[in-house]
Amino acid sequence: MSTVAPILLTPGPLTTSARTRRAMMVDWGSWDDSFNQLTARVCQQLVTIINGADSHHCVPLQGSGTFAVEAAIGTLVPRDGHVLVLINGAYGKRLAKICEVLGRRFSTYETAEDQPTTASDVERLLRANPSITHVALIHCETSTGILNPLADISMVVAHHGKGLIIDAMSSFGALPIDAQKIPFDALIAASGKCMEGAPGMGFVFAHKTSLANAAGRSHSLAMDLHDQHAYMAKTGQWRFTPPTHVVAALHEALVQYHEEGGLPGRYKRYAANCQTLLDGMARLGIRSFLPDAIQAPIIVTFHAPKDSRYQFKAFYERVKAKGFILYPGKLTEVETFRVGCIGHVSPHDMQAAVNAIGEVLKEMEVQHF
Amino acid sequence: MSTVAPILLTPGPLTTSARTRRAMMVDWGSWDDSFNQLTARVCQQLVTIINGADSHHCVPLQGSGTFAVEAAIGTLVPRDGHVLVLINGAYGKRLAKICEVLGRRFSTYETAEDQPTTASDVERLLRANPSITHVALIHCETSTGILNPLADISMVVAHHGKGLIIDAMSSFGALPIDAQKIPFDALIAASGKCMEGAPGMGFVFAHKTSLANAAGRSHSLAMDLHDQHAYMAKTGQWRFTPPTHVVAALHEALVQYHEEGGLPGRYKRYAANCQTLLDGMARLGIRSFLPDAIQAPIIVTFHAPKDSRYQFKAFYERVKAKGFILYPGKLTEVETFRVGCIGHVSPHDMQAAVNAIGEVLKEMEVQHF
Repeated sequence: MSTVAPILLTPGPLTTSARTRRAMMVDWGSWDDSFNQLTARVCQQLVTIINGADSHHCVPLQGSGTFAVEAAIGTLVPRDGHVLVLINGAYGKRLAKICEVLGRRFSTYETAEDQPTTASDVERLLRANPSITHVALIHCETSTGILNPLADISMVVAHHGKGLIIDAMSSFGALPIDAQKIPFDALIAASGKCMEGAPGMGFVFAHKTSLANAAGRSHSLAMDLHDQHAYMAKTGQWRFTPPTHVVAALHEALVQYHEEGGLPGRYKRYAANCQTLLDGMARLGIRSFLPDAIQAPIIVTFHAPKDSRYQFKAFYERVKAKGFILYPGKLTEVETFRVGCIGHVSPHDMQAAVNAIGEVLKEMEVQHF
Repeated sequence: MSTVAPILLTPGPLTTSARTRRAMMVDWGSWDDSFNQLTARVCQQLVTIINGADSHHCVPLQGSGTFAVEAAIGTLVPRDGHVLVLINGAYGKRLAKICEVLGRRFSTYETAEDQPTTASDVERLLRANPSITHVALIHCETSTGILNPLADISMVVAHHGKGLIIDAMSSFGALPIDAQKIPFDALIAASGKCMEGAPGMGFVFAHKTSLANAAGRSHSLAMDLHDQHAYMAKTGQWRFTPPTHVVAALHEALVQYHEEGGLPGRYKRYAANCQTLLDGMARLGIRSFLPDAIQAPIIVTFHAPKDSRYQFKAFYERVKAKGFILYPGKLTEVETFRVGCIGHVSPHDMQAAVNAIGEVLKEMEVQHF
C-alpha cells in the first residue's frame, strides 16, 4: 500500500498541485482589502479566459458547481420563462430537476448517452415550440465524457433570439469557448475542475444585460446572482462569508494556469493525458465507451471487463492501493468505470495508472474483455 | 509592517491553527470511502457537542452559514407556515429577508441593538398571533455581540407547541446548548466559527421528525436538507461535490477542540480572551457598547473615540500593520468598531492586540474617548 496520498483520476475534486494547496496555509479576513483584491483578480482572470470581459460579469458563488447552476437558472430565467433542456446524461437530467424544483416551466429533449444533441435537433425543437425562452445544455457531459456541439447549437439558439445557459463545469478552461463568438446568457463552472483549484466555489459568467434585468427574480437569497454581483461591484466584498482558503487556492491555481500557457497549454496536456490513457487501455484490451470523435479529453468511460472475476469495488480498492483513485461508471444499462484526464497530472502519471490497472487485472485474473 | 500574516480578530473567517490548515494539504476523492468516513466522523462529533445524537440529524451543507440558514427555513418551515422573527441586529434582519425571498409568511419583533428579546415578549407575541408556526432567532447577534436568552425563549416556544429555528452561527461550540433541554427544529452553525475550521460549509442540526416530514418542501434543489440527508444516509456521500479540503480541516479542528477539553475548555479560553480585551480596552479609555450581563465572549463592540483625528480606515490599517485585523462596526446610529474573541488566539494575543491598539491611538494622537 502506498503511503503517499493517491492521485485522483476523478472529474473534480481532482489532484491539485502542492503549490495550490500551500496557498491555503494563510487565513484571510473576508472584509480586508487584500482579500477583496484577491477576489477581483480571480474574477477578472476567469472572465478573460472566455474573452468575455466586455460582455459578461463573472459572479462567484459559494458552494459546489450545482449551486452555481441553480443560481444561474433561478436568476436569469424569468419566473414565466420556458427552458428547453438538452439531455444525454446525468448532469442534463439535473438541469431539468433544477427547473422542476424552482417551478420554471421546462421541456426536455433526450438523446442516448453516446449521442450528442445536434444543432438541427435544436432548430426543429425551437420551431415547434415558440414559447421556449431559454435553452440549457451540458457542454461536456461528465456521465460519459461526451462533448456536445456547443458552437453550432449556440448559433441556432441566437438565431431564434433565445437565451442560452451552458453548464461548462468540466470543460471551462480546457476546451475553447469564446464569448464573442458563442452568445450566451450564462456559462457556469467551478473552482475544482479544469482550473485545478480546491472545490468550494462556483462561478457564473452572466451576460451583463441579462443580469441587469434580473433584479428580484431569484427564488433564493443566497443564490441571487444579481444581488451577489451588485454587492460585490459596490463593496468589493462577497455578500456572505466567502470560502477564503478556496479563493486563495484558485488564485494560485490561476497563476499556474497562465504559466502553463493558459487554455492551449492546458488543453494540450489534457489531450496528451487522454491519448496516453486511451492507447494504454486499448493495449490492455479495455474498450472505451465513446467513439473518438465525440470523446472530450476530460474523462473517459470504459467498458468493464465481461468476466465474473471483475468486480468494480475490489478493482477500485486494488488500484487505489497502487496510488490511483478511479471513478465509478454512471450508466444504467452498460457496466462501465471512468478515468479522469484532468487535474495536476501528466501523461507520465496516466501511463503509471494504466500500468497499475494492468497489474490489478492480472492479480484478479480477469481475462475476458 | 509585520511580514507574517496578521491575526484575525474577526467573527469568522477567523484565525485557524497551522495544524488545521495543514489538513488541507491532501486532496480527497469525494466518492472514496475514506472521505465518507471523514464526513461521518465530523457529523457525529458535531451533533454530540449539543447532546443531540438521539433527537437530531447533523446535515452538512456546502456554502457559507447563510446558505445553511436559508436551507433550514426552506426545508423545515412548511410553505403555509408563519415565522415570528426576533430581531436585534443585522443577522436577525437577514432571517426576515430570507423568509421574504422564500415567500414564507413572517412577522418581526424588533428590539434595540443593546436589548435582548425576552421570553415574556415571545409569550405575549405567541398569544396574540396563534397563526405563528415557528419562531426564529439569533443566539448571539454578531452585529453587537449581544446574547439572547435562548433557554427561556425555547421553553415558551415549546409550551405553545411551535417550532424553533436557532441561528447559532457564532455561539455553537463555545456557549452550551443541550438539545435535550432546549427543544428546537433546527440549529444552524458553520465550519469557520467557534469550531475554528476554514469557512466553506455550514451544518444544520435538524430534528429527526421535523426533517422526516419535510420531503419535497424545499424551494431549492441544492439547499434541500431532506434530500441532502436522505442521500447521505443511503450512500455516505454528499449529494453534490463537497468542499473536501474544508471538511478535512474541520475534522482536524474537531480533534483539537476535544484536546482543549471540548466546550468547557473552549468557553474558558474565549471568556479569558474577552476579559483580557475588555480590561485592556477599559484601561485605554475605550468603552464597550454592551453591558457585561448581555455581552457574549464572542465579539465585542466598542464605541469609536469621539475625536476628529480618529478615522476607522486609518486606524484599521495601522493596527493591521502591527499584526491584527479588526472588524468594522455594524450599527447605524453609533460609530463603533468590533474585536472578535474567537479563533485560534489566546489571552496573550488579545493583550498584544490591545497594546497595538493603544500604540496606534497614540500615533494618531487620538485623545477624546
